[in-house]
Amino acid sequence: MAYVYHSPILTVDAVIFELVDGELNVLLIRRTNEPFQGAWALPGGYNAAGDTTRQALARVLTTKVGVEPGDLPLVEQLYTFDTIGRDPRGDAVSVAYMGLCQQLELQADDSVQTPTFYPLGKLPELAYDHADIIKYALERLRSKVTYTNSIFALMPGRFTMTQLQQAYEAVLGRPLDKRNFRKKMLALDVLQPTEDYYQDGAHRPALLYTFKKQDFQSLTGSLD
Amino acid sequence: MAYVYHSPILTVDAVIFELVDGELNVLLIRRTNEPFQGAWALPGGYNAAGDTTRQALARVLTTKVGVEPGDLPLVEQLYTFDTIGRDPRGDAVSVAYMGLCQQLELQADDSVQTPTFYPLGKLPELAYDHADIIKYALERLRSKVTYTNSIFALMPGRFTMTQLQQAYEAVLGRPLDKRNFRKKMLALDVLQPTEDYYQDGAHRPALLYTFKKQDFQSLTGSLD
Repeated sequence: MAYVYHSPILTVDAVIFELVDGELNVLLIRRTNEPFQGAWALPGGYNAAGDTTRQALARVLTTKVGVEPGDLPLVEQLYTFDTIGRDPRGDAVSVAYMGLCQQLELQADDSVQTPTFYPLGKLPELAYDHADIIKYALERLRSKVTYTNSIFALMPGRFTMTQLQQAYEAVLGRPLDKRNFRKKMLALDVLQPTEDYYQDGAHRPALLYTFKKQDFQSLTGSLD
Repeated sequence: MAYVYHSPILTVDAVIFELVDGELNVLLIRRTNEPFQGAWALPGGYNAAGDTTRQALARVLTTKVGVEPGDLPLVEQLYTFDTIGRDPRGDAVSVAYMGLCQQLELQADDSVQTPTFYPLGKLPELAYDHADIIKYALERLRSKVTYTNSIFALMPGRFTMTQLQQAYEAVLGRPLDKRNFRKKMLALDVLQPTEDYYQDGAHRPALLYTFKKQDFQSLTGSLD
């Protein structure tokens, strides 16, 4: 008998991180269909034949969140997860992408699926194996900000050294020594001081910086 | 009209690296079927519904190369490549895995597809986009050996400091300073000296080392 090939269902899922009030948040949607109807989940959907995984990702973000991949300063493939036996829709393989952004404007109308940023420390119960995927993404993000300039994608265009340190602390989940952080960041030679200062109430005005490169680069050292 | 989902073909491909005579080699097979019949290619095949990508990988290695994934000290998922428009079999998505090994015993009979290690510098023309996949894998490998102990998977159980340096040089594709290399490797605290020496002709006997851990770990520093 000839071998007949049946491919698994292929899906894409998006893990979109943003800093909200100094906490790392992840973007969730509320599922409108079974399985897990009404549950919170990562934005995801089918990858149809003829679509690249990036095209499927773009469709998911447009239809379920109301954003374009171009709205995210950094998007990269994370990992491909086997969900055999875990996905009630059948045998599925899911290509997960990670995106980083800053103040993403979320659509609030009924054409999308209630896109909402949730702090990682206060996630609701999640559909499928999405809690595992988020855990994996966080690990990757922590490694990325240590060895690359990726944190630029979570930062506003201009920021103080303290704000940058707070962003690193939110991602890494631990406090950093202020003097040491400043010294290492300046040594990495990725920041450009502006001529402007940030004045916050009684504090001394703080110099504003930008990233020299607004696209991904490896660091010649590390923040370790 | 209801939306009917057609999934793309899902395949797995394996990039298996080994050091042969001080050169980094990659494992290729000679294709026995169309497309690209007779051409050299990475071992790969269909990922059927019900199989995880790891199970599909195991099947490919067993049937086309004659080895078990367990024969490889290190196997990890590399990246998922879209081959839309590039794969004559149709719209395909391929999950690539990278494996590292040392003196893999290759089957030589007709039940497999001529598995052969080729030096990276002397690759034949390759089927599909496999040259791109190998290039991507080499980049990942170079990064991995810099930030982790992964090179253990390419080394014999016991080796001299010079042999280890030669392995790093073969992977990184550039010479390393001998004194500096030795100092950094010892500082990383991943090597265990044995009580034995390697004697090669007229040279001074060289101390043999082993890796403290024969499984993957991140380094607390880097070889950069």
